[in-house]
Amino acid sequence: MPATMHYSRDNLWQIEQAGFDHLLLGKTEAIMALGNGYFGTRSAEEESYVGEQRDTLVAGTFNAFHPTEVTELPNAPDMWAMNFTISGAVLSLIKGTVHDYSKRLDLRTGELTREFGWEYEGRNLKFTFRRFVSKARRHVMASFVTIENLGSEDLTFQVSSGIDGRYSNEGSQHFTEGEKGLVEGKYLQMMPTTTQSGITFVQTVVHDVHADKVTSHIEIERRRILLDHSFTVPSGGTATLERRASIYTSIDNDLASHDVADMRAVAVGELDSIADRSFDQLLTESAGAWDERVWRVHPIIIDSDDFRDQLAIRFAQYHLHASTPAHDERMNIGAKGLTGENYKGHTFWDTEVFMLPYFAFTHPDIAKSLVTYRYLGLEGARNKAEANGYRGAQYPWEAAWPSDGEVTPVWGAADIVTGQATKIWSGFIEYHITSDVAFGVKLYMDVTGDLDWARAKGYEILLETARFWLSRLEWNGEKQQYEINDVVGPDEYKEHVNNNAFTNYLAHWNMTYAIDLIDSLHTQQPEVYAKLDEQFDLEALKAQLVDMEGKVHLPQPTAEGIIPQDDTYLSKEVIDLTRYKAHDTVGSLFRDYNLDQVNDMQITKQADVLLLLLLHEDLFEKELKLKNFDYYEPKTTHDSSLSLSTHAILSADLGKLDQAYGFFTQARDIDMGEYMKSSDPGIHAASLGGIWQMIVFGFGGVRMIEDKLRIEPHLPSEWQKLSFGFDYQGQSISATVDEKGLTLTKAGTGDGVTFLSGGEELTLTDTIHVPSGR
Amino acid sequence: MPATMHYSRDNLWQIEQAGFDHLLLGKTEAIMALGNGYFGTRSAEEESYVGEQRDTLVAGTFNAFHPTEVTELPNAPDMWAMNFTISGAVLSLIKGTVHDYSKRLDLRTGELTREFGWEYEGRNLKFTFRRFVSKARRHVMASFVTIENLGSEDLTFQVSSGIDGRYSNEGSQHFTEGEKGLVEGKYLQMMPTTTQSGITFVQTVVHDVHADKVTSHIEIERRRILLDHSFTVPSGGTATLERRASIYTSIDNDLASHDVADMRAVAVGELDSIADRSFDQLLTESAGAWDERVWRVHPIIIDSDDFRDQLAIRFAQYHLHASTPAHDERMNIGAKGLTGENYKGHTFWDTEVFMLPYFAFTHPDIAKSLVTYRYLGLEGARNKAEANGYRGAQYPWEAAWPSDGEVTPVWGAADIVTGQATKIWSGFIEYHITSDVAFGVKLYMDVTGDLDWARAKGYEILLETARFWLSRLEWNGEKQQYEINDVVGPDEYKEHVNNNAFTNYLAHWNMTYAIDLIDSLHTQQPEVYAKLDEQFDLEALKAQLVDMEGKVHLPQPTAEGIIPQDDTYLSKEVIDLTRYKAHDTVGSLFRDYNLDQVNDMQITKQADVLLLLLLHEDLFEKELKLKNFDYYEPKTTHDSSLSLSTHAILSADLGKLDQAYGFFTQARDIDMGEYMKSSDPGIHAASLGGIWQMIVFGFGGVRMIEDKLRIEPHLPSEWQKLSFGFDYQGQSISATVDEKGLTLTKAGTGDGVTFLSGGEELTLTDTIHVPSGR
Repeated sequence: MPATMHYSRDNLWQIEQAGFDHLLLGKTEAIMALGNGYFGTRSAEEESYVGEQRDTLVAGTFNAFHPTEVTELPNAPDMWAMNFTISGAVLSLIKGTVHDYSKRLDLRTGELTREFGWEYEGRNLKFTFRRFVSKARRHVMASFVTIENLGSEDLTFQVSSGIDGRYSNEGSQHFTEGEKGLVEGKYLQMMPTTTQSGITFVQTVVHDVHADKVTSHIEIERRRILLDHSFTVPSGGTATLERRASIYTSIDNDLASHDVADMRAVAVGELDSIADRSFDQLLTESAGAWDERVWRVHPIIIDSDDFRDQLAIRFAQYHLHASTPAHDERMNIGAKGLTGENYKGHTFWDTEVFMLPYFAFTHPDIAKSLVTYRYLGLEGARNKAEANGYRGAQYPWEAAWPSDGEVTPVWGAADIVTGQATKIWSGFIEYHITSDVAFGVKLYMDVTGDLDWARAKGYEILLETARFWLSRLEWNGEKQQYEINDVVGPDEYKEHVNNNAFTNYLAHWNMTYAIDLIDSLHTQQPEVYAKLDEQFDLEALKAQLVDMEGKVHLPQPTAEGIIPQDDTYLSKEVIDLTRYKAHDTVGSLFRDYNLDQVNDMQITKQADVLLLLLLHEDLFEKELKLKNFDYYEPKTTHDSSLSLSTHAILSADLGKLDQAYGFFTQARDIDMGEYMKSSDPGIHAASLGGIWQMIVFGFGGVRMIEDKLRIEPHLPSEWQKLSFGFDYQGQSISATVDEKGLTLTKAGTGDGVTFLSGGEELTLTDTIHVPSGR
Repeated sequence: MPATMHYSRDNLWQIEQAGFDHLLLGKTEAIMALGNGYFGTRSAEEESYVGEQRDTLVAGTFNAFHPTEVTELPNAPDMWAMNFTISGAVLSLIKGTVHDYSKRLDLRTGELTREFGWEYEGRNLKFTFRRFVSKARRHVMASFVTIENLGSEDLTFQVSSGIDGRYSNEGSQHFTEGEKGLVEGKYLQMMPTTTQSGITFVQTVVHDVHADKVTSHIEIERRRILLDHSFTVPSGGTATLERRASIYTSIDNDLASHDVADMRAVAVGELDSIADRSFDQLLTESAGAWDERVWRVHPIIIDSDDFRDQLAIRFAQYHLHASTPAHDERMNIGAKGLTGENYKGHTFWDTEVFMLPYFAFTHPDIAKSLVTYRYLGLEGARNKAEANGYRGAQYPWEAAWPSDGEVTPVWGAADIVTGQATKIWSGFIEYHITSDVAFGVKLYMDVTGDLDWARAKGYEILLETARFWLSRLEWNGEKQQYEINDVVGPDEYKEHVNNNAFTNYLAHWNMTYAIDLIDSLHTQQPEVYAKLDEQFDLEALKAQLVDMEGKVHLPQPTAEGIIPQDDTYLSKEVIDLTRYKAHDTVGSLFRDYNLDQVNDMQITKQADVLLLLLLHEDLFEKELKLKNFDYYEPKTTHDSSLSLSTHAILSADLGKLDQAYGFFTQARDIDMGEYMKSSDPGIHAASLGGIWQMIVFGFGGVRMIEDKLRIEPHLPSEWQKLSFGFDYQGQSISATVDEKGLTLTKAGTGDGVTFLSGGEELTLTDTIHVPSGR
């Protein structure tokens, strides 16, 4: 049976792979990855295969392999692998006959189950593997194996399991070997340290085997400490093997001491303290934490013709929470979450533009941690600006530990024409990240109304980013305007362009917002004004902003109503992209053209002008949006997973609901879909944030316009009903949308909530119904 | 068909594995490893398997992964792997049906051939892989693949091949990623640099594919540069794929410039220059170099009841030459040659005691390079002595780059009782290495008569090592004797013992030899004496040596005639070792006892007292040797591959020829035998030197006694005739031994060669026959 994804209307919490294929390991390693935000691990099979990718990534533990490399999340020693030798034969599903292979993740509980029958040269066995990463105890993971001997012969087993530090990040090893040993006669421990950042890990494993004639012996090899268990399973008999493990690191913010001896004692103490609880008890405890922290918080219910729509939002929420280091504001979300090494665990604009909205509207505490990370990154951003000859804060295109500053690698994939590695310009000239960060700060402040945070941290970011733009603008004497030249915009297929519309408009917004902020602080929060004035000389800053903002070149529509993506885009060659859009893998374009060639064609990687029209929808008329949508979408390859959700929301806004639903299902299937290779390097975290946005922003019609809440739902014809909820400035609001219209309910007794709908300003006090068609 | 070793009387140059087993990859990866002394590579299969160990090791390129680790030979980017996808199915011999799998190494030419039929889901193919590392061009390697489509369907192929730098040494990565790219549209190049020692590698690969519809595209990933070739092989058709590759490094002594650009140009230039020669032409050229440099030099012919005896000496010579960096005196032989990472490429006493004799007697130029390495190591040895509070030269137990000094790792395998890693004491207290080095120097000088080298380098080593012992001796006031306490002797199962006989006798020899040397220089080479006197103050040194040598405690036989291995050995418990001696794997003892426990028993890892009796045979009577042999051998586990050859030679000397032949076959089979796991970490280089010694020293009866050549052959009953040859002080001598006796022939017109045989001094001028029984 070939490996395929299997979903069922009967279990809207389960994603399943049915059938095994050793060439298609990556998909479910990634989309069934386990995690709790503190650490994440890919769900590689217990037994080993060529091509497997085992990853255990602890948020924030960045390290640089060498001064020539940037920091990345190091792949920690593995504690999941188990290798079985059964009466002389190594368990491998490549050989023999495999029955009823099922690998499934219960999104609600975070439990991964892998189950199959295996017949091989007279052996007839059933294996059931269960595992989870505890949401209730951030350091703990556990696995439970049941082996049933269905054959007529008694079988002997050797099982090798423990801690294996031979893994690396694609060959770059981030850890010293570290001390290793056996504690209290049963706890395997290994204490590797990252080579550059000096973070010590304490990893501990303990086993419990129930079988006949169990013996064990320890193997300590280089970078490995394993227990080899030998036992017998008689014909018709069963054996079980449980393994519990934990990870601590010397940057953990829940430890009183980072002394290695203390950490070792804490690790052993925690495993000791749960020794009398069963696997199922620990799983129940963890599932309870998932329920309390995620599933009971503004649940989304979709009545759709396609049950996978419901599953998709749970899948998205599962991974957003498994991958977000909500426990530590020094950390942020990686582009692949904690599900793969790709993008090195780095944080991009993906957070602010694609994921932050979910957290701001549903988990404001987590959103606060995410924006605080940018506050902690101010120093690095100031340093980057200064190093480049600018002022203020220039945020790094890729961010790791806040003080790491810019960590975008310099070299990328091969150029098919020259055969040389391509230079990645984003770290140098993809300037829009700075206003994206400002955009996220504003979003957080508007949605939560968190004035304390704004005063302590948010305003400073908004002023420092505005100050950066002042220094970045270039005066064009001929045209008597400020320009931003030699940039990469959201469409990374265009390098070294001038006046990318998205970049210029967002820079301009950042400046005008700072002007308004200074004015408002002056009149409404004089103490805060006084404090910031010391740092910024606000009067002078405002004067300069006022002087320059009016002269910033904001690309205007052509006679045909098209906003040029940049100064030269519209003059470039147009080619038919159909075959590249249909292709299974992103980037298929680059088998035929190199980046220089693509640079000279009207080909857009992802929403660029269209994203501008979405983020600043109030600046543009619907007619203009329609024209630009029809112009740019056919030229867009959607090679970035950030593209489809933007198109879905925008087309929903524009009333193109069939098209919107089409984009929705495409985006939904980026990770969950049938194609078994697309998620190999890890899940697409921004796209998962996009799933929530498509539902709540796109079809639910929720939006922040300037600083006002607007709710204008428009369900696609495939959906009969949508229920969702969100927090807004301290109030908890539930929404239901169906053919009759929108019903909002506000919990608690707080002030009424004012919102826009159909051009009217309404106020929600308890419950309000807005009939459809308004 | 299970994987087994297969040898045939019909081809005494071939070792073969018949049948494939993915669990038994290590054996032939190692024993069929390719090399030319400049670099060596394990013969891993082209396609990938779990558990494979790919190694490409360039002699001398030591690097430390981290300050907490010692330097080791780094595993360079692989250039042998090829992964095949055949109409959608990945080639893997784990699945489908494999026919007539044969993997074989032609020892004469150095060609590796791997051949099999593979049927899988309708595909029916025959593959033939051929490869070699050029003996004629030290930087070059080549492989040639023939694919025959025996099935009825046309098949499409994708073959991925290039340079893969994701490999490491058991997880420790020694290289920066390095620049990589495509040169002249066809040469893949990668230029990684070792992280600590700063050695830059230039690795280059070029392909030539002959098939239908060939297309290719380049993949540049992290630490990888690959060409993916796609082509078609019609039913009944054939395709061929040739790959040539080269390695250069910035420590190469045959390069005029170590500038990377220059090295890249040299690499491309060399591959360009041989582009018009076929694979077979290049192989013939390489085989010619093997023939000229190895096989025509003193060939050994054994008429034996067991043809494997003949094969074994060729196997030994093949690997001794494949692994010995004869081209560069800054390098020496690793304990695993260049066939595996084990022992980190480090040089031990294995060189002087087990391998140097082969080279001194047959390839004096190589022997000179090996002893010169120790001369270059004097500085490190002086530093080690000084760091430990001693004088003179204390050689490192493990040596890497000469200036690295001591590189023995501090921690070893797990203690089965405590579960903690065991401390390796050899680097601290295994003192005998220093007199072993002196012993090797003397051997080289005696056998070659190379006075120039002796004057320039050898005498200095002999005096510095003697000076070390003066500072190392400890005065026992009670017994009025000098002792050497708290040592590890050759038997490494005894740590922290006092007065290990081997150590004390060799230290004493080192001192008395220095006295004789000073005397003889004074009278016979006054100019040399004068030069060394400046450095050593020879009169004072001699006075001190003379004063102390007579008081060195030399353990004397007990009443039963047993020389105690150390002060306490004979008082320890004796246990029955039968089951451990029979066990397949060395070290099986340590599944039942830990080192502390073994320390308290009369268990010896390898020849210790017996090695003393062999190396200094003139000091001891035959009767005493017999008693000690009978006492110690049953207590010896032979867990070191250095043990059996010593026992074989000593028992041959003692007239126990059946037993000697038994040891010989056991030693012969350490690598070549049927047991498929023993060579996984690499071949046993010292044991290979031992094979030559067992034949020429043991059965051929050749020996240096003091400074005199002795030849007293004694063939085992299984051998009808033995022919061998050697160089002695510039003269080339051939020997034949059969039932009639010994016939010696001297080539050329030089002086007669005086030698001892049967107690008489004889002189060989042209040919001499010594009848048996003398």
